[in-house]
Amino acid sequence: MSEPNKPPEVKPRDWRDHWYEIIFEADTKAGKAFDVVLLIAILLSVLVIMLESVNSLDEDYNDQFHYAEWFFTILFTIEYVARIICARRPLRYIFSFYGIVDLLSILPTYIMNIAPGETQRLGVIRALRLLRAFRIFKLAHMLSEASELRRAIWASRSKIAVFLATVVIAVVIEGATLHLIEEDKNSGFDSIPESMYWAIVTMTTVGYGDIAPVTPLGKFLAAIIMILGYSLIIVPTGIVSAELAHGGRGSERIKITTQVCPECMREGHDSNATFCKFCGARL
Amino acid sequence: MSEPNKPPEVKPRDWRDHWYEIIFEADTKAGKAFDVVLLIAILLSVLVIMLESVNSLDEDYNDQFHYAEWFFTILFTIEYVARIICARRPLRYIFSFYGIVDLLSILPTYIMNIAPGETQRLGVIRALRLLRAFRIFKLAHMLSEASELRRAIWASRSKIAVFLATVVIAVVIEGATLHLIEEDKNSGFDSIPESMYWAIVTMTTVGYGDIAPVTPLGKFLAAIIMILGYSLIIVPTGIVSAELAHGGRGSERIKITTQVCPECMREGHDSNATFCKFCGARL
Amino acid sequence: MSEPNKPPEVKPRDWRDHWYEIIFEADTKAGKAFDVVLLIAILLSVLVIMLESVNSLDEDYNDQFHYAEWFFTILFTIEYVARIICARRPLRYIFSFYGIVDLLSILPTYIMNIAPGETQRLGVIRALRLLRAFRIFKLAHMLSEASELRRAIWASRSKIAVFLATVVIAVVIEGATLHLIEEDKNSGFDSIPESMYWAIVTMTTVGYGDIAPVTPLGKFLAAIIMILGYSLIIVPTGIVSAELAHGGRGSERIKITTQVCPECMREGHDSNATFCKFCGARL
Amino acid sequence: MSEPNKPPEVKPRDWRDHWYEIIFEADTKAGKAFDVVLLIAILLSVLVIMLESVNSLDEDYNDQFHYAEWFFTILFTIEYVARIICARRPLRYIFSFYGIVDLLSILPTYIMNIAPGETQRLGVIRALRLLRAFRIFKLAHMLSEASELRRAIWASRSKIAVFLATVVIAVVIEGATLHLIEEDKNSGFDSIPESMYWAIVTMTTVGYGDIAPVTPLGKFLAAIIMILGYSLIIVPTGIVSAELAHGGRGSERIKITTQVCPECMREGHDSNATFCKFCGARL
Repeated sequence: MSEPNKPPEVKPRDWRDHWYEIIFEADTKAGKAFDVVLLIAILLSVLVIMLESVNSLDEDYNDQFHYAEWFFTILFTIEYVARIICARRPLRYIFSFYGIVDLLSILPTYIMNIAPGETQRLGVIRALRLLRAFRIFKLAHMLSEASELRRAIWASRSKIAVFLATVVIAVVIEGATLHLIEEDKNSGFDSIPESMYWAIVTMTTVGYGDIAPVTPLGKFLAAIIMILGYSLIIVPTGIVSAELAHGGRGSERIKITTQVCPECMREGHDSNATFCKFCGARL
Repeated sequence: MSEPNKPPEVKPRDWRDHWYEIIFEADTKAGKAFDVVLLIAILLSVLVIMLESVNSLDEDYNDQFHYAEWFFTILFTIEYVARIICARRPLRYIFSFYGIVDLLSILPTYIMNIAPGETQRLGVIRALRLLRAFRIFKLAHMLSEASELRRAIWASRSKIAVFLATVVIAVVIEGATLHLIEEDKNSGFDSIPESMYWAIVTMTTVGYGDIAPVTPLGKFLAAIIMILGYSLIIVPTGIVSAELAHGGRGSERIKITTQVCPECMREGHDSNATFCKFCGARL
Repeated sequence: MSEPNKPPEVKPRDWRDHWYEIIFEADTKAGKAFDVVLLIAILLSVLVIMLESVNSLDEDYNDQFHYAEWFFTILFTIEYVARIICARRPLRYIFSFYGIVDLLSILPTYIMNIAPGETQRLGVIRALRLLRAFRIFKLAHMLSEASELRRAIWASRSKIAVFLATVVIAVVIEGATLHLIEEDKNSGFDSIPESMYWAIVTMTTVGYGDIAPVTPLGKFLAAIIMILGYSLIIVPTGIVSAELAHGGRGSERIKITTQVCPECMREGHDSNATFCKFCGARL
Repeated sequence: MSEPNKPPEVKPRDWRDHWYEIIFEADTKAGKAFDVVLLIAILLSVLVIMLESVNSLDEDYNDQFHYAEWFFTILFTIEYVARIICARRPLRYIFSFYGIVDLLSILPTYIMNIAPGETQRLGVIRALRLLRAFRIFKLAHMLSEASELRRAIWASRSKIAVFLATVVIAVVIEGATLHLIEEDKNSGFDSIPESMYWAIVTMTTVGYGDIAPVTPLGKFLAAIIMILGYSLIIVPTGIVSAELAHGGRGSERIKITTQVCPECMREGHDSNATFCKFCGARL
């Protein structure tokens, strides 16, 4: 299982290559069938984890959930081992993002049985299994289609960072101010972190209401924060929109050069033009 | 009432065609009057259903609501039968979307009287009557005017699907995490589905407050989820905007013709080009 | 005070014209001063009404509020009478929007003193005084500057109407469904109108939490409604954006005609061009 | 420490210039190191202030927080004195925005020790220290990169002012109306200012739920306000978007030159025009 830096010699590894295609790829018929079966298994196993967490259901169907869990764990263990065997560079797979997710999907069940008790709560980690659906849907690949949006977001990353820094500073100062005003009113602003939590709940317009100002001054400041928070959504939207509008134009039109036709002296030629499009002279 | 596959022979069915125009169409004066009367009947009958559901009103005006309900049911039954008789292909009408809505609008009243008791709650189904207003307003038709927006949404359907899949996975993992943290705090995160409900309530910024984190770690994660959820609205807006901008631009820029240079066989000439911009030959 | 249909004979009505300019217009120095004084009086009187509604303050400063109210009422009464006298067409002023607002601003104080008791609550109507600030700020005029946006909203009015009709129908059906599911759970869905109120609170992401589903099915449907409601904001934004993008282009660029220069046969001339911009021949 | 209006004579002030570069600028290696150390100190000191406000932590670690606070205060005091000494115009620095923030960052600790008791709450003011991070990040500078957005917001400032004025008037009238309807229902609409607070909470879709209408009429009006408030976000978004689109287009279209036709003196020629498009004269 050593991993040489140069690509391994291409010897005829029929069965391994064959299974690699089935497990890791989806171009063959068998590969597609494998993916569909795996996706169903993932969704069912996550459904079992969800239902298991509902107390009333867990009491009635505890055994069924137990067996289902072991079934899926063994299934995913076999799959995990098969991936390691088939992978051309097993270590690279094991320490890749999906390799770790695959491991985290099966490990909790074993740990919970080896050392029961406190570890029961680890079971929830298995919900990470759902991340494996990303691999099957090739979501990362599909998202790359939204390249224009990603490029716009990426191009405005420094502006977004500045925006986020401003929001964080605003949250701290708003939290400290409301804490100062509402501290003794039993309205939930017991500490600055609590008040910051309130400020975020308010600025994002979530508004649980578990913490809410009760003093007139607190309500007045809260109202101002709300209107500011409500307006804030315009800023990132505006930044991305501007970038989209700006960038979309840039990447689509053919750049117009500053070349001048030596014959008719006309400008406005495309950058890929060799001859003047008005008089036919060589540029 | 048989339905042949070839169009029925056009024999002079005067009264049926006459009524078809009145009931199904709105181009004639009688047809428009029919639609207006029907619309008023629908709105009034939905109003009666609404008021009937208010207990304090139901006690006082129980009889009036009962008579009104029967009046509208008989009216809509007559209309339903008339539609079946007039329709050129009755079976197609019966199993069409509006045919089923028409049936569901009248059926509950009969069932509730034939088998009283448990069926009382079916009465609410009659609210579907309102869907029939869609037919009168020709809303579907009017919405098709918003074709640019629909095209933009349709063109970005794969991106929106990826976006929704990402949101669903985020909701599951957020729900599982908060369930893990807040399980024993009596704060409402009793099971993963409950926590997922909370995650959706939070990410959409609805924020009822019936479930809210109480632990510092839970509040910290919730704050991050809020900011992420708040930012998420930019993604679909951005996707659709980019698509709108893209489509809009298409109609503005100088059209590139499909002309091919007779000399060098190259394409991509501007519509205002006289000479091939690659080889200088006259186009 | 008769109002002839033809414009009144222009006789030298010095003092009336003079006061008309001061009271109704803001171009002269006296007119501006009048407006500033009036604006301050309006804001102060609205402030008094607000503070009067606070019980703790009303107990302590009841007399002061009473005197202030009479001061402003008499001031506005004088202004109202002056406007009627100065107006060239008094009846048109009296029945204009601002004329009625002016009357409603002073009437409640008199009624409350003539017939005390039940009429006390009419006092709140005086808050309409604030509408008079619109006149001073010429807000209506300033809003007309946002003509591009207004044009976009107006141009897409039929789409917005369809959108609103769809939302109303969705609200009714969602309300009826949740009422059906949650009726007996004491969760606030006591009647269809109550449930519709909840549906609006949820779809607009306000989310008070005074009414919230408690059954699993209710929560599941609520989650779907939330995601739909959250996505809905894209629709009107998209419609208006598309219209802005579409219309903005139309109104700004000079239309390019399909004219062809008879000399050089070149196209792409502006619609206001008389001569070919490439060869100088008359088009 | 006098501050002459003309720039001070450039005498060789080595050590002062040297320290000025380190403290105020970030171009040298020492200056960057100073900034990084200062940023860490600021963040740590704000963290201490936050944790100090949590009662359970304050009880256990009261001494540690006390020592940490004195450590940071002395550090920032040294920095403040150093800035005054190094600054070429000390008074201008002291009365600049950052000079005042620097002073407010250290003053509360001294006041709280000189006059303990009531002044304890001043401690929260020290959270303003975070504002100093703005200086290090040169956030103001970075924000200026978002110039297109700022220009769009600035260009539409009068429209935004009108929009805000409209919102304020709407809030007052909505608050007064709901106060009138819900006054005696114990639902929180106790005074017009309270009701205005509710109107803002509702229109921004925050929706705490601490104040919520209980009467049918109140709920009906609230629902209308919600839909209006939900639609309102389109207005500023639309204004800024339109401005962005407008400005963006400006850079794309063919520039219109300031050339004037020597024959007919008309303007508005395209930059690619050779002949006057109105009279045919050569430009």
